[in-house]
Amino acid sequence: MISVGIVGGTGYTGVELLRILLRHPNAEVKVLTSRTENGRRVDDMFPSLRGHTELKYSDLDINALKACDVVFFATPHGVAMKHAEELVAANTKVIDLAADFRLQNLAQFEKWYGLDHACPELLKDSVYGLSELNRDKIKQANVIGNPGCYPTTVQLGLAPVLKAEGLVKPESIIIDAKSGVSGAGRKASLGMIYSENADNFKAYGVAGHRHHPEIVEALENISGQKDVFNEILFVPHLVPMIRGMLSTIYIDLTDAGAEADLQSLYEAFYANEQFVDVMPAGSSPETRTVRGANQLRIALYKPQPKKLVILAVQDNLVKGAAGQAVQNMNLMFNFAEDAGLQGIGLLP
Amino acid sequence: MISVGIVGGTGYTGVELLRILLRHPNAEVKVLTSRTENGRRVDDMFPSLRGHTELKYSDLDINALKACDVVFFATPHGVAMKHAEELVAANTKVIDLAADFRLQNLAQFEKWYGLDHACPELLKDSVYGLSELNRDKIKQANVIGNPGCYPTTVQLGLAPVLKAEGLVKPESIIIDAKSGVSGAGRKASLGMIYSENADNFKAYGVAGHRHHPEIVEALENISGQKDVFNEILFVPHLVPMIRGMLSTIYIDLTDAGAEADLQSLYEAFYANEQFVDVMPAGSSPETRTVRGANQLRIALYKPQPKKLVILAVQDNLVKGAAGQAVQNMNLMFNFAEDAGLQGIGLLP
Amino acid sequence: MISVGIVGGTGYTGVELLRILLRHPNAEVKVLTSRTENGRRVDDMFPSLRGHTELKYSDLDINALKACDVVFFATPHGVAMKHAEELVAANTKVIDLAADFRLQNLAQFEKWYGLDHACPELLKDSVYGLSELNRDKIKQANVIGNPGCYPTTVQLGLAPVLKAEGLVKPESIIIDAKSGVSGAGRKASLGMIYSENADNFKAYGVAGHRHHPEIVEALENISGQKDVFNEILFVPHLVPMIRGMLSTIYIDLTDAGAEADLQSLYEAFYANEQFVDVMPAGSSPETRTVRGANQLRIALYKPQPKKLVILAVQDNLVKGAAGQAVQNMNLMFNFAEDAGLQGIGLLP
Amino acid sequence: MISVGIVGGTGYTGVELLRILLRHPNAEVKVLTSRTENGRRVDDMFPSLRGHTELKYSDLDINALKACDVVFFATPHGVAMKHAEELVAANTKVIDLAADFRLQNLAQFEKWYGLDHACPELLKDSVYGLSELNRDKIKQANVIGNPGCYPTTVQLGLAPVLKAEGLVKPESIIIDAKSGVSGAGRKASLGMIYSENADNFKAYGVAGHRHHPEIVEALENISGQKDVFNEILFVPHLVPMIRGMLSTIYIDLTDAGAEADLQSLYEAFYANEQFVDVMPAGSSPETRTVRGANQLRIALYKPQPKKLVILAVQDNLVKGAAGQAVQNMNLMFNFAEDAGLQGIGLLP
Repeated sequence: MISVGIVGGTGYTGVELLRILLRHPNAEVKVLTSRTENGRRVDDMFPSLRGHTELKYSDLDINALKACDVVFFATPHGVAMKHAEELVAANTKVIDLAADFRLQNLAQFEKWYGLDHACPELLKDSVYGLSELNRDKIKQANVIGNPGCYPTTVQLGLAPVLKAEGLVKPESIIIDAKSGVSGAGRKASLGMIYSENADNFKAYGVAGHRHHPEIVEALENISGQKDVFNEILFVPHLVPMIRGMLSTIYIDLTDAGAEADLQSLYEAFYANEQFVDVMPAGSSPETRTVRGANQLRIALYKPQPKKLVILAVQDNLVKGAAGQAVQNMNLMFNFAEDAGLQGIGLLP
Repeated sequence: MISVGIVGGTGYTGVELLRILLRHPNAEVKVLTSRTENGRRVDDMFPSLRGHTELKYSDLDINALKACDVVFFATPHGVAMKHAEELVAANTKVIDLAADFRLQNLAQFEKWYGLDHACPELLKDSVYGLSELNRDKIKQANVIGNPGCYPTTVQLGLAPVLKAEGLVKPESIIIDAKSGVSGAGRKASLGMIYSENADNFKAYGVAGHRHHPEIVEALENISGQKDVFNEILFVPHLVPMIRGMLSTIYIDLTDAGAEADLQSLYEAFYANEQFVDVMPAGSSPETRTVRGANQLRIALYKPQPKKLVILAVQDNLVKGAAGQAVQNMNLMFNFAEDAGLQGIGLLP
Repeated sequence: MISVGIVGGTGYTGVELLRILLRHPNAEVKVLTSRTENGRRVDDMFPSLRGHTELKYSDLDINALKACDVVFFATPHGVAMKHAEELVAANTKVIDLAADFRLQNLAQFEKWYGLDHACPELLKDSVYGLSELNRDKIKQANVIGNPGCYPTTVQLGLAPVLKAEGLVKPESIIIDAKSGVSGAGRKASLGMIYSENADNFKAYGVAGHRHHPEIVEALENISGQKDVFNEILFVPHLVPMIRGMLSTIYIDLTDAGAEADLQSLYEAFYANEQFVDVMPAGSSPETRTVRGANQLRIALYKPQPKKLVILAVQDNLVKGAAGQAVQNMNLMFNFAEDAGLQGIGLLP
Repeated sequence: MISVGIVGGTGYTGVELLRILLRHPNAEVKVLTSRTENGRRVDDMFPSLRGHTELKYSDLDINALKACDVVFFATPHGVAMKHAEELVAANTKVIDLAADFRLQNLAQFEKWYGLDHACPELLKDSVYGLSELNRDKIKQANVIGNPGCYPTTVQLGLAPVLKAEGLVKPESIIIDAKSGVSGAGRKASLGMIYSENADNFKAYGVAGHRHHPEIVEALENISGQKDVFNEILFVPHLVPMIRGMLSTIYIDLTDAGAEADLQSLYEAFYANEQFVDVMPAGSSPETRTVRGANQLRIALYKPQPKKLVILAVQDNLVKGAAGQAVQNMNLMFNFAEDAGLQGIGLLP
């Protein structure tokens, strides 16, 4: 049983971490911090946790965190990087659910997040926590940059066809992504209120979104190709639902790609992955099939001989955030990879 | 063509007033104020209005408002009462959609709204704008207190049976009310965000709600009975929908009430009211049938011989707010009562 | 490890039983029947189950069911009673999620369900499966009538105050209940389609609902009082949400009730119940706090000295159906009562 | 005042036609047919119409329809073509909201709709009713094929850039479209029920959708180019909302296109169109801004120098169906083009 700290336990990734970790067989949450709720019981704020914990929020106390085996940062960008070095020095592992350790390109980080990086050396040693693609590195890591929700769908959706050489034209990628509203977090914002979002649909961030540079860097790493992804399009949309994310990815096939059996390629690539499900040809993955589950489902279509359409769904708060973070923790501590993550999606 | 001012044009009652008034045959909106958006075009904030107006927000300028024939206050409680006397002195009529002129009982006003009333004398001369029940007074009024949304359903739901003497036991009234989220207004509030309200249901204000004293005072006026409504129950609930309100009202019948033909009583009472619809026996009024329409629908049930259940639905932003305000304006200026209010509910 | 059969595995209670039982430590689903889907894999119909089972639907084969330790009927009313005797004779326990074993009053059963009862003798031996109230009998039962969703909230909401003598006026009870749409089941029905229910609210069944006689019989059993509940009011409403149910219960207090500390009474009554949560005074239980969890939460209000308002929420598919059914199974087989039922509600 | 018949008045396009036409200054609905509801008042089925009409459904009587000036077919595919010739012979104009007169290519019609065309000669004389693009022909037409909802967004979204020569690579078009659920119509279908669609998102029809051939034929007509659109991608998705449609259209620009001022091009193209709104650069059109309004809004983005992203929103039941049908009627009878269509979108 390891001891866990969570910094920033009042947001949706925080409560989702608690939902998972309070039932985890190998981990116990010992510390839960909040800038504003010091002393308040967490089940007073989130009554869904009543009966499952007596934890109280505390102010951030670095010594309390150093006494943990691992600390999750479910905080705004820029918090984890301030404390990571001290924690690692104390032999405490760090998993950041924000962006501090996602981008190796510091110029991009500073451009999109408006922050100077506080520990660029540690960043170099950190590992990008896309569990299925970086499993070996994650097992050895002290610091994990947990992927963004959109980038997770894009990477798992494209990895098989990018790792196979010569099947696709990488510069042609268009990602038309759709997310539930919980992705925007739990904060008082006029744009997020119910009456502004229900029974409505819109695109946002068309001119530029922080996940674009993360996607570019990640696809470069997956494919081993530089400079071919800079001009890919990424257009996110907001769906009137709480949880769920679907990315529709369009990519031009080469002649070789047009002839390849891509369905078999994908099934083989993910044959041993319990959290990535390649659905049968003709399937239409629905977000509700992964509601609350650490699962990503993929379906492939070739509506034209040289056009591939990839559909990838996940629960943005689980495989897109807290679930993948726990999956990474499991890898780092040599637990069963699905410990605490065996729940079945809530349908309907 | 009268000239209209709207104070507070960035909230939902404000934009709803504009939706109605911009197509009104006898009124033109000349002034639209906002504390924060001075100089901004209103159709930039509410693109639904694009093509229908070139109005811009301005700071509140009392002289500009005095040049209007009527001014609507779509503001927080406490604003209209600061300006009403000066406007009335300038022969400008005032319709307040907040609570400043709803309660004649100043002690209750101060208790529930935390405000000293700025013009108690004018309050005495003001008229409570429940159009169907106070039509004659409204026609003569200079200042209207536009009813709260919940109280509108309760008054119109109960008026026929309260005005007929001896049919009901007034102290037995229980109002179990349900409202869409837009009733809480357009403001950045954590409790109002999409992910906190969608796919969820709850009661609120069980221990006490501002509309309770308004209901009590109104029912006293309707029935001519004092002190019998103080202990009625009013429990509001929040429905995951944008617009719409349903009040389920329970009341014990006297022996006379048990024998009366209440369906006929209601049909006769509202026979000449175009905005109040008594549905046939056995009907179940749905909020969507009044979406966007200045309409209230009622159905009656007697599931037990001495128990009456009244169902009343409306669009909280229309008959429950902006629509009734315009209906009152029409009465005050001798326009056709349905001028600008003929739109049919948007179903589905 | 017991073997389990599920008759009727294509509805929402069916898939919910699977969601729970496929992760249950002491039970294995061996048989899953459907009238229409024989041979189809269940995870083809419900992709949320992909990776968790390879079960296929089969036609109803009584011998296959008799080989199970327990059979759940997640079928329309009238199916379980046809097979229960044969199963019990084969030492297979029966848990019916429909109404066949809910009402001891056969006249009421026939009136409301239009069916002659197929096994009235077995009905007498069956046990009404409100787990917390009938625990000892359930442990000994061969046949369980799993309670209706609405009646579960009403019984758990009222039990403490009814079992204490002389606190309330039982004939005054009014139940204003609100349910998500999944309670209507998974069937092609015009009234159930999205565009008829979203952004809408209505009452239904005001003139009479099948759960009324069930509530009456149950409250008689709880209180030991006959003939005082026949005229209680029960008015259900439909909320535009998938899961969730809230009952607002109004009841008049006696003088003794007005003086009693009801909050303490409730807390004491449920002190050892892990699935019933009496919230602190002033709380407002939200349906989302129990989404997917086998949990019922209660809050009490006394808005007037002699009026009690009880708020009770549950997930209609879990504590209101499949979860309580598994809880009963756990009792019948002496498993830990929370085996398979430890999941935390999915919030947001 | 013209007399109007509506064939098929029980679906969503039927009730939407009524919502518009019952308030139309120049038209009166005289005949309303239904295969199943003969003799029933329409406001009994759709209580939103109570107080606005006393119309009853009748069986389809061709003579009654021939006495009308215009007949709308709000029916399944294949009905209008059976009656159109006889109506036209009687000097009655026909507006079909189904697909019978959308496709000039009979092979495509038969392939996608499974029907032999009943009146191919009349089809040749019919006019495709995209009001803004075919206005002059519509004015002279006897038979209108009212466009599909998706194709309306695509044509109005692409027309300016396709009609200008040499700006885009037409074969590169990708249409990622999203629609509210009402587009699937009002029918009892398991896939359409609330609990299957709420809080969910999915693609559908990825392998092929009936609107693809309509889009191809329409874009050929707009651009004057044949055979360059056959391989465009069209992927529709289902949004958990009632009304609203957003198409995100991706297209590669030529060098000339990359240098052109496309914002100005669009603004000029639609400068005189009251129902097409080119929003300022940087805008994000939201479906709710057109809820209930006969309006389509467009925004343009160039996230990369040679990539154009076009966002187009409409209410699928209004500009995408009934509203455009009335707009076409207005053109055919020389009414003001916006007669009956001046309503402002219902926001929130």
